Amino acid sequence: MTVQFRGVIPPVVTPFRDDLTVDTDSLRHHVDRLIDAGVDGLFALGSSAEAVFLTRDNRRAVVSTIVDQAAGRVPVTAGVIDMTTPLVAEHVTDAVESGAQGLVATAPFYVRTHRTEIAEHFRRIHDMAPDLPLLAYNIPVCVHVALDAPLLIELATEGVLAGVKDSGGVDAATRLIVDARDAAGLTDFQVLTGSETTVDLAYLAGVDGVVPGLGNVDPWSYVELARLCTQGRWAEAAALQTRITQLFGIATVGDPARMGGSSAGLGGFKAALAHLGVFTSGRMAPPHQPLDDTELATIARIIDDAGLTA
Amino acid sequence: MTVQFRGVIPPVVTPFRDDLTVDTDSLRHHVDRLIDAGVDGLFALGSSAEAVFLTRDNRRAVVSTIVDQAAGRVPVTAGVIDMTTPLVAEHVTDAVESGAQGLVATAPFYVRTHRTEIAEHFRRIHDMAPDLPLLAYNIPVCVHVALDAPLLIELATEGVLAGVKDSGGVDAATRLIVDARDAAGLTDFQVLTGSETTVDLAYLAGVDGVVPGLGNVDPWSYVELARLCTQGRWAEAAALQTRITQLFGIATVGDPARMGGSSAGLGGFKAALAHLGVFTSGRMAPPHQPLDDTELATIARIIDDAGLTA
Amino acid sequence: MTVQFRGVIPPVVTPFRDDLTVDTDSLRHHVDRLIDAGVDGLFALGSSAEAVFLTRDNRRAVVSTIVDQAAGRVPVTAGVIDMTTPLVAEHVTDAVESGAQGLVATAPFYVRTHRTEIAEHFRRIHDMAPDLPLLAYNIPVCVHVALDAPLLIELATEGVLAGVKDSGGVDAATRLIVDARDAAGLTDFQVLTGSETTVDLAYLAGVDGVVPGLGNVDPWSYVELARLCTQGRWAEAAALQTRITQLFGIATVGDPARMGGSSAGLGGFKAALAHLGVFTSGRMAPPHQPLDDTELATIARIIDDAGLTA
Amino acid sequence: MTVQFRGVIPPVVTPFRDDLTVDTDSLRHHVDRLIDAGVDGLFALGSSAEAVFLTRDNRRAVVSTIVDQAAGRVPVTAGVIDMTTPLVAEHVTDAVESGAQGLVATAPFYVRTHRTEIAEHFRRIHDMAPDLPLLAYNIPVCVHVALDAPLLIELATEGVLAGVKDSGGVDAATRLIVDARDAAGLTDFQVLTGSETTVDLAYLAGVDGVVPGLGNVDPWSYVELARLCTQGRWAEAAALQTRITQLFGIATVGDPARMGGSSAGLGGFKAALAHLGVFTSGRMAPPHQPLDDTELATIARIIDDAGLTA
Repeated sequence: MTVQFRGVIPPVVTPFRDDLTVDTDSLRHHVDRLIDAGVDGLFALGSSAEAVFLTRDNRRAVVSTIVDQAAGRVPVTAGVIDMTTPLVAEHVTDAVESGAQGLVATAPFYVRTHRTEIAEHFRRIHDMAPDLPLLAYNIPVCVHVALDAPLLIELATEGVLAGVKDSGGVDAATRLIVDARDAAGLTDFQVLTGSETTVDLAYLAGVDGVVPGLGNVDPWSYVELARLCTQGRWAEAAALQTRITQLFGIATVGDPARMGGSSAGLGGFKAALAHLGVFTSGRMAPPHQPLDDTELATIARIIDDAGLTA
Repeated sequence: MTVQFRGVIPPVVTPFRDDLTVDTDSLRHHVDRLIDAGVDGLFALGSSAEAVFLTRDNRRAVVSTIVDQAAGRVPVTAGVIDMTTPLVAEHVTDAVESGAQGLVATAPFYVRTHRTEIAEHFRRIHDMAPDLPLLAYNIPVCVHVALDAPLLIELATEGVLAGVKDSGGVDAATRLIVDARDAAGLTDFQVLTGSETTVDLAYLAGVDGVVPGLGNVDPWSYVELARLCTQGRWAEAAALQTRITQLFGIATVGDPARMGGSSAGLGGFKAALAHLGVFTSGRMAPPHQPLDDTELATIARIIDDAGLTA
Repeated sequence: MTVQFRGVIPPVVTPFRDDLTVDTDSLRHHVDRLIDAGVDGLFALGSSAEAVFLTRDNRRAVVSTIVDQAAGRVPVTAGVIDMTTPLVAEHVTDAVESGAQGLVATAPFYVRTHRTEIAEHFRRIHDMAPDLPLLAYNIPVCVHVALDAPLLIELATEGVLAGVKDSGGVDAATRLIVDARDAAGLTDFQVLTGSETTVDLAYLAGVDGVVPGLGNVDPWSYVELARLCTQGRWAEAAALQTRITQLFGIATVGDPARMGGSSAGLGGFKAALAHLGVFTSGRMAPPHQPLDDTELATIARIIDDAGLTA
Repeated sequence: MTVQFRGVIPPVVTPFRDDLTVDTDSLRHHVDRLIDAGVDGLFALGSSAEAVFLTRDNRRAVVSTIVDQAAGRVPVTAGVIDMTTPLVAEHVTDAVESGAQGLVATAPFYVRTHRTEIAEHFRRIHDMAPDLPLLAYNIPVCVHVALDAPLLIELATEGVLAGVKDSGGVDAATRLIVDARDAAGLTDFQVLTGSETTVDLAYLAGVDGVVPGLGNVDPWSYVELARLCTQGRWAEAAALQTRITQLFGIATVGDPARMGGSSAGLGGFKAALAHLGVFTSGRMAPPHQPLDDTELATIARIIDDAGLTA
């Protein structure tokens, strides 16, 4: 029976040692903390994991550590993000060998591609590991092309795709996928939102789960939020979502005059995890720019005010 | 004494065997043909080389084969294109070991970056191989961020950059770089254009050379074009450029309803080289879409009409 | 006491006679139909009204006809969409003279503008008619710049803006405005969504109303949808929204190989209103392309299947 | 016999009185200065004229004043820039009545359009004034769609277009138009570049003229530059172009933290003309932001250093 990826599935952030190798001790600690909080699955090597900053060796270390530490308590899916089909193929091999129970792939990037080429890309990835559910990762802000409902449903109907992680940021587009999925009777096709500040809205639109980067910092609230949504307690869900969104302020503390959105956003998450003692350091891979002491203090205060713990 | 990359430096297209390994025999043949035509250098692992479709092993095979075959007759620079600094670092190691005499790097991509981060990216790359001239590769159509004159000149002044390959497509911007270079007295900073249909204009604006993808197919014309430009024979240069541009039609034969610009453009170059017998096949890496028989016949006719030979 | 624009406020589509003057008889009929269906207000001269295709005379005819026919039953706000401040000024004068009770303005466009300039634009518009509530119209797909929460709240705090019509299409951004409004205690600042397929989601996020183009065709469903939302009957709201979205299919019948999105979308609305007998014709202003007979038949069938009436 | 627009045709900047009406005295002075410098024609109501900030009355005043003052010494073409066909129609009527000898129109904007719709737009404009040469104005930075060579040549072949003012900023694209024009044997189709820093390059690529905003400030240099180009004195042309480009620095003095590119660029031109005494003031229409005293002093110094006179 195939594993399904639904519910709260955080994209696990990767802790680094000073030499930028993977800090597997912190990673194991973090995995336990997420599972203890009640998440439904784990997404290794997503964008938040700095997957595109990791060498193949480091990618393998991340997946095998997460799979080993999860120990079957929750399923683990692995990102295989890379520029083109031949490179994704290598990551598929590695992910399978590391025990991943699912795959997540973006459209090709760097090179401009046609819809026909994007479809072939996903078909070939599926053929490499036909037993693993393959999720399409819609993230136009990174790959500069969007995956639309007709293409996704076409590939789902062929059996190529088992679902989609939609980080396109447009709830109307996510809903189009849900409606098209329902119209096609593809009941097993999972639609997950990557938008951490509209989880209640996405659930009301019919999604099956969420992949929240901020869930690394506060998994409990996302687990509770998903529970309220599946119970149809929408007003409470919306109120909780608003409180969660305030915590999202840690992702915008970094000064935009000095760093890009990834340094500020991921830096905020990692600083929070370091402040909480989950990670031994908030270090990011280059060329990310570090937060300064004032910014770190601001993040620490937000975390403390929210009453979060390790 | 440092090698300088100037004049006509084709971005060498990579021939594949049926199993998508590098067809080193065809590649050696191609290298000889380019050098015999009088090119001033070779750029391995550029976008036209399908560098972002090649595994590390294949990338190494490409650079070492080109370096070995060039045998010092012309200098060889190697692209180290990848998403982020740690991955570029691996390619730098490989390129150095393979004997490359220069490096060409883009801004980071996939992740959104800040100017500060782009600068750090180039500084770190330079530090990895301080003895090799490092060229910045401005290619916003692929990496979705442009490198502007102030940033390039800042990095040139620091000794980080030895030049730029400008594939931004805007001659006014290329000229800004040239003018800023001259104003700063950075006489050794090489400005190369990647625009194969405005080489005469770029030379009139002051560039030092050109990296023409179409030069894989017709290196002789680009060598002649550069000669006319450096001799100030501008009217003749413009007339020759117009004739060359007609040959560029091979890059737009592929049906845009069926394939992307890379499949059509690179596919046209590779089909031409296969027709000429330089390559044993025009095969491209997936998910590129192949040209069909009618399209291949059209390209063959254009090549024959132009009187090109192997 | 100031009029407030909240609830269901359709952007009234403009019927044309054969000579492209305003078909005021059809327009009066349409206004009655909308008010009878229970809408809370009317938005004249929005994008759906082809405001940017209308001469000043025609714009005045539209507003005065709608105001006259509404006769105080519901408030009427008027778009003053134009490229720059001096031209908007003319429309403000006209709207005031025509009896509009509110104004809706976009950021300047054609010319690239700075945040400072956008703010000055809205301040000057407010100064022209300080007694009328001014709504900012966020429509980046048309003006190619987005209005963000900090700018809107700054202008609301100054008393310049009374609300926003957010047609940005990103519910997370709409929610940021709602949350910032609440945090600032600006209880009278109205947030309206222009996204007709996520009205339930927008209400759950806290908006005060909706400006649905499709509400021209089926006002009853939007009135019912808003009622369900304000009563907290979210599951029923979501189910109704999904049914409404199916009707939205009339906006995508026009062949994209032959026409742009406005011709297909607005053409679908106008064809539906003509089929229902509300308008005497579905004619659009040039250079819009007309739907063909097959497309018109498809739209008629969708309308009939939905059981809609005049 | 039809008037032809070729050579140096400055887009005449519009001087304002304090009440933002057109300062016709300064405008007449400016027209004389341009004609005395040897320009080949005048383009009224271009982007640099703040055409999209002018009421119909002010637009008429501009064209009739320029036509009257030119008094047949050089031909005058008039921009009819507006959002859609019906509004452009009004400007065509006004321009014809004001004595314009040519028309310049952009693609429609605000509304998203299809190629078919853009073509119909130009066909209808031509039909409104079939005796006046109509130039297409390619300015994607303002209208967010580009006019490509196949569309332009199709419309030229039909007799709709007499030429193009290409402000797309990409010389390779301008050259494609020139080459397609030559291939089609449309010898009377005029290709003008709007890129004031690559005039030499554009001429080498085969253009017939230039519409330089900076030519308002220094018409003599552009006249000389065009002369050198038509005489094939390319090295001298390139050297002169580089000197002219230094003067273009007046367009980037305005602080980008405080104003947009139009305020800085146009503000620089108008400040220069005020400093020279050609205009009585450098005032711009709202919401343009004014340059401050320090910035004005910088511009004055650049102008004085260049030795320019009224």
